Amino acid sequence: MPYYIGDVIKDEKRLIARTPEKFRETGIDVRIDTRVEEVDPQARRVRLARGGDLPYDILVLGTGTQPLLPSIPGEEREGVFTLKKLTDARRIKAWLKDVPCRRVIIVGAGFIGMEMSEAIRNLGIETQVFHRGTLPASRWDPEFSKTVLAELERHQVGFVPNVEAQAVEEGKQHRLRLVTSHGEDEADMILMAVGIRPQTELARQMGLPLGKSGAIRVDFSQRTPQEGVYAVGDCAESFHRVSRRWVNIPLGDIANKQGRIAGRNIGGDHAVFPGIVGSQSFKVFDLEVAATGLTERDAAESGFHPASTLIWGNSLAGSMPGNKKLGLKLIADKATGKLLGAQAVGEIGAVSRINTLACALWAELTLDEVGWLDLAYSPPFSGAWDPIHIAAQALRRQI
Amino acid sequence: MPYYIGDVIKDEKRLIARTPEKFRETGIDVRIDTRVEEVDPQARRVRLARGGDLPYDILVLGTGTQPLLPSIPGEEREGVFTLKKLTDARRIKAWLKDVPCRRVIIVGAGFIGMEMSEAIRNLGIETQVFHRGTLPASRWDPEFSKTVLAELERHQVGFVPNVEAQAVEEGKQHRLRLVTSHGEDEADMILMAVGIRPQTELARQMGLPLGKSGAIRVDFSQRTPQEGVYAVGDCAESFHRVSRRWVNIPLGDIANKQGRIAGRNIGGDHAVFPGIVGSQSFKVFDLEVAATGLTERDAAESGFHPASTLIWGNSLAGSMPGNKKLGLKLIADKATGKLLGAQAVGEIGAVSRINTLACALWAELTLDEVGWLDLAYSPPFSGAWDPIHIAAQALRRQI
Repeated sequence: MPYYIGDVIKDEKRLIARTPEKFRETGIDVRIDTRVEEVDPQARRVRLARGGDLPYDILVLGTGTQPLLPSIPGEEREGVFTLKKLTDARRIKAWLKDVPCRRVIIVGAGFIGMEMSEAIRNLGIETQVFHRGTLPASRWDPEFSKTVLAELERHQVGFVPNVEAQAVEEGKQHRLRLVTSHGEDEADMILMAVGIRPQTELARQMGLPLGKSGAIRVDFSQRTPQEGVYAVGDCAESFHRVSRRWVNIPLGDIANKQGRIAGRNIGGDHAVFPGIVGSQSFKVFDLEVAATGLTERDAAESGFHPASTLIWGNSLAGSMPGNKKLGLKLIADKATGKLLGAQAVGEIGAVSRINTLACALWAELTLDEVGWLDLAYSPPFSGAWDPIHIAAQALRRQI
Repeated sequence: MPYYIGDVIKDEKRLIARTPEKFRETGIDVRIDTRVEEVDPQARRVRLARGGDLPYDILVLGTGTQPLLPSIPGEEREGVFTLKKLTDARRIKAWLKDVPCRRVIIVGAGFIGMEMSEAIRNLGIETQVFHRGTLPASRWDPEFSKTVLAELERHQVGFVPNVEAQAVEEGKQHRLRLVTSHGEDEADMILMAVGIRPQTELARQMGLPLGKSGAIRVDFSQRTPQEGVYAVGDCAESFHRVSRRWVNIPLGDIANKQGRIAGRNIGGDHAVFPGIVGSQSFKVFDLEVAATGLTERDAAESGFHPASTLIWGNSLAGSMPGNKKLGLKLIADKATGKLLGAQAVGEIGAVSRINTLACALWAELTLDEVGWLDLAYSPPFSGAWDPIHIAAQALRRQI
């Protein structure tokens, strides 16, 4: 019987619904607040931080990620947070309320930074985002990142580009002061959202090989090279069907899928994880921001010959009330005409288009096919020529 | 230089934007209100109803469809309408206002019947739908048709099932009386929305072969067997990529695509129409209703061995405010595991799922692939397991 200790440590939300008692009813011994200090793969035993050890036949590592800190003086101060777990969210929520916070600084403009800027601003709190880069959401085309920036500005979220956080000190007007390469700013809370990395201490200590991505290497059955040891989720690599490389894209849906694959194989069924195409999305205020496949840089690094086009079209038929602008960028390979990636932003229908294109990537369709896909046309949902068709045919002509 | 007379007769909306003068500037002689009475393919001339004839090198038939009437006494009465063209819509609008209408009967519960029931009800007019079948939107699973019916009822649109219209007479309370197999009802307007058929008089008169569907047979370049004669749009057949049969599905997006293919080939470029997968959608009040591929009956008739599953899932992550129920039905082939069709209803995200599945059908994916597609997961847009995954994996287990 496997112990899903890593998964339990990670996914506290699930524990609320499924208490250890519930699990025990089904014959599964779930131990919460139980940290595994060390694994002895020879003896097949895990040593617990609180003392004692447990035997295993099968070990599943689902240790997830850990949030990065910028490594600056004062980052350990009270009021400086990272956000990964439900308990982090609860601590932040309590802090915002109890202090109470009038002004918050977010360091970083990725998914977490963007989603939290909305959440905090919507509480009526002054919100400033400090970012190392020039524009937020740097995985997207600069033109789309500018749309994200405009959405922040439209909701009075401040954005300070090209800054390095250098220290956190005690503040005067507010609790904390953030010292940066471009001066100082104060806030009652600072959220460090500068990135995450796979949590691989146990794996390393066990001698498991890590991939170039820094995550645990697995095969299509989620097995590691050590017999009986599996790894799933944010701590593990995934096969990217477009680049044909093993990558680490820590997202909840991928983790779910890998968990199911490992579970089936452990249970005696046969299952392989067919890989990913790099689909992702976030919402910031009224804007849908989504992408799939490779960026031009990723594509070039993988040996493709990328060409791209970026269009602004209509989410619905142009004549429909409620229609909004939709930005769609496609990236394709000049040599084969194959679609390599897509990005979209808009208030309506960005994720919808990216999901269709994610399927096109999965199936390795060319622009000649994507440009003529038979979509469920009706004016409340799209024009007769969808932005997908328009962009694919434009890029096809360009190549 | 080709005359696109059929297309011009059909698409009056476009004529508003592009007047004959505008066309003439680009060297195209567009004649509106110009009915072609006869075509002489030997002489390559078209004879006009108003007298005179015109020569052609290339002839494109884009004659569209014509709405059917039930063939009952009184159907020619003033106040009885069909809806196909912009002028029909204008006449209906004027009638609703000028009479003025307090009560409208719609005969038929397909796309036109459903869309018009919403449009008329939203004007505050009492609206009754009379239908030959038991449920509206009969292309969909009865469970989804019931959802459509509930949406009609929620908006106080009456629905009378299993009736045959038998006559239209002069009314007492209202202008018109509809006599049916189940009694009589009165209204100030009656919309006959009982179906359409391809308009093929000219094609037949020219000796062009029609397919089983009743529409004009074409090849992948939109050519008919007569040299220099093309057919496009609702009057022509399309290759259905799932059933591998030639079908007639009259929809604006297909017509647009076929027109572009014919135009390219006529202009000396090479282009083939890759076919359709049967995607379609409509909106009725707050409900999205969409489908792609084959129904179980279509699939069986095409020689497949269909199995299906129908699930109710979440449009967004279950925890998100604004989440709505989403119904998704998948049909797949027991022999190969290939996806054959999909249907969806819901207030949010039904069309989005169908478009993704339309791409899966296009690429001939199996349930094993559809169940693990890498979609752009984020809680505002879906759960970690999308209804697509859940339905595909459920159907896979069933097969």
